[in-house]
Amino acid sequence: MANKGGLEGVVVADVQTSLVNGTEGKLIYSGYSIEDLAANALFEEVVFLLHNVRLPNAAELEETRSYIAQNAVLPDFVLETMKNTPTDTPAMAVVRTATSMLSSFDADAENLTDKEVAKKKALRMTGQVASICAAWTRIVKGEAPVAPREDLTLAQNFVYMMTGEEPDETASNAVNVYLVLLAEHGMNASTFTSRVVTATGSDMHSAVVAAIGALKGPSHGGANAEAMKMFIEIGEPENVQDWFDTNIKNGDRRIMGIGHRVYKAPDPRAAVLKMHAERLAESSGNTKWFEIAKKLDEAARADEYFIDRQLFPNVDYYSAIVLYTLDLDIDMFTPLFVMARMAGWTANIVDQMQGRLIRPKANYVGPMDLSWTPAEER
Amino acid sequence: MANKGGLEGVVVADVQTSLVNGTEGKLIYSGYSIEDLAANALFEEVVFLLHNVRLPNAAELEETRSYIAQNAVLPDFVLETMKNTPTDTPAMAVVRTATSMLSSFDADAENLTDKEVAKKKALRMTGQVASICAAWTRIVKGEAPVAPREDLTLAQNFVYMMTGEEPDETASNAVNVYLVLLAEHGMNASTFTSRVVTATGSDMHSAVVAAIGALKGPSHGGANAEAMKMFIEIGEPENVQDWFDTNIKNGDRRIMGIGHRVYKAPDPRAAVLKMHAERLAESSGNTKWFEIAKKLDEAARADEYFIDRQLFPNVDYYSAIVLYTLDLDIDMFTPLFVMARMAGWTANIVDQMQGRLIRPKANYVGPMDLSWTPAEER
Repeated sequence: MANKGGLEGVVVADVQTSLVNGTEGKLIYSGYSIEDLAANALFEEVVFLLHNVRLPNAAELEETRSYIAQNAVLPDFVLETMKNTPTDTPAMAVVRTATSMLSSFDADAENLTDKEVAKKKALRMTGQVASICAAWTRIVKGEAPVAPREDLTLAQNFVYMMTGEEPDETASNAVNVYLVLLAEHGMNASTFTSRVVTATGSDMHSAVVAAIGALKGPSHGGANAEAMKMFIEIGEPENVQDWFDTNIKNGDRRIMGIGHRVYKAPDPRAAVLKMHAERLAESSGNTKWFEIAKKLDEAARADEYFIDRQLFPNVDYYSAIVLYTLDLDIDMFTPLFVMARMAGWTANIVDQMQGRLIRPKANYVGPMDLSWTPAEER
Repeated sequence: MANKGGLEGVVVADVQTSLVNGTEGKLIYSGYSIEDLAANALFEEVVFLLHNVRLPNAAELEETRSYIAQNAVLPDFVLETMKNTPTDTPAMAVVRTATSMLSSFDADAENLTDKEVAKKKALRMTGQVASICAAWTRIVKGEAPVAPREDLTLAQNFVYMMTGEEPDETASNAVNVYLVLLAEHGMNASTFTSRVVTATGSDMHSAVVAAIGALKGPSHGGANAEAMKMFIEIGEPENVQDWFDTNIKNGDRRIMGIGHRVYKAPDPRAAVLKMHAERLAESSGNTKWFEIAKKLDEAARADEYFIDRQLFPNVDYYSAIVLYTLDLDIDMFTPLFVMARMAGWTANIVDQMQGRLIRPKANYVGPMDLSWTPAEER
């Protein structure tokens, strides 16, 4: 039997959450194009959409927003543990642990079968995870965490909890767009992880914690941080061509954030993020990083290797610029991806509940028919 | 494209760790039959075997044993957090959180590429996870955790840390056999989970934490606890036939611990565990649970439904009796499974390191081509 290694092309579920068309570079969530959603939707609308396969009316939207905001408060025990965590711990490890701890304080944590209960739990966890991310940005700087406000959207609350000040509109809007764009993306590795866990009958916290662990990997959600480290290494827009010639054209490195397993056309999320990165660069007056990214993209666009292989900037490439311009530490880039993907993960988890155990096969190529010998005779 | 739902028969990796022959009811670890290993091997020998595809010599075995024992001590921060955790938290959630916390205290936690470093980390984590399990058995009873000793095997240390007394030989041997039998089992759901996480380039703690979440599910590692709850519900050996007739023959329930996705012949681990369950029952004088299990097994053996479908007791069935006779709370059954499977998980994780991203496909069946409308107009 052929070894399916990366499971390319193997269909594991029928879904209504998203369609990734890698050939044409299109992404839709439950019928709506990502461009439409990025231009119009609150993250809360996308959360509702992914869980219910339709957009909420005004009352439902307000209900969703306020329920998330009201339930985003972290239990003292979780906050205290975070405060005592060694501050050199990678933020993704902190988010993984703190999210795992939340289950002790959720009365429905062990309800493994009721999908309506699970949808509510998903909203609570979505808010709490945002609070965990914001709290850690302050704790590492020696600042006290700020509790969420009930009157804000999740994007506004995140900016508020991070800064402790009335949330800046430009920043909140940029965070909202980021959350909308990253909310869901087909059967990616972390979403698949959450489904494999759920298919054993396990609980939502276990599935989300597992997904966080998968997203942490540099070949998945860790890529936005790697892209930013590369931009920083380049340092100045005038260094781009030399850096490209030395490390890429005549070197054996690859450009972090360019190329994607599924997209063989421009990643539609990258175009939206590029526009926002440019706007943020202009409004903040700090255009350096956007210029570096744009020049490097142009260098790749002019190179045969990238043209032949249809390698385009993916979602991580320009999102790195957006997040860095928002003054977010690089270590927090992937946690922000977690905040967004909570929507897609939990929608997939609810869909997978009570589904069939996911158990593939291994091809044994080891020794056979050995006889036991005592340790002294080996 | 066909929906592969449970991924039955889809090969995802070449492995040298174990071969599960479900048709003949055979299980081997790197060439050795499970019967041979259960009769002869220390758990430490199996850990070495799975990581190195050969048995250790006497010096290597002692090195493995002592390294695990020396590194099984838990950081104070982890122990303190466990002590402050609400005691009604499911043990598996505690093990998941505490294991996640360990990464802050492992200098090699973020070494994602060196397989030799990873093998050492696997040994440390294997010892630490056993200490977490033992500590929680005491914390829930209001007792202070006991630190591991450097002179004991992992099975002895677990009994010692659980009781605080010189480890009883019968109990240690039973734990050792249990750990050997449950150490590894092909591409099961939790092992697969750990591989999906590792394939994103993520770290061993993330992969193990994800696997713990998968094992927690009642269709996977949670099944031994479910089996024991069923035996307790039956209550007495003389109730077995009535219970079977009412709930199984003429009811719609299934027997927890009978039947297996892969085995269509007797699970070879069940035979070994049945023998140990019987011995433990006799030596402890508490034969009731073994009698119930044996009678229920016989009732199923005599029933057409079970005969036709080749449903036999699996590893969970008699292991429930072994663990219960060892005075372990039912809530600790699956954590003991974690202790054992650490060996197989970490061997698979090291094997998967730097492997290809595992990303299957979803079949989109949701709406298409919808146009955005403002919330007020919905």
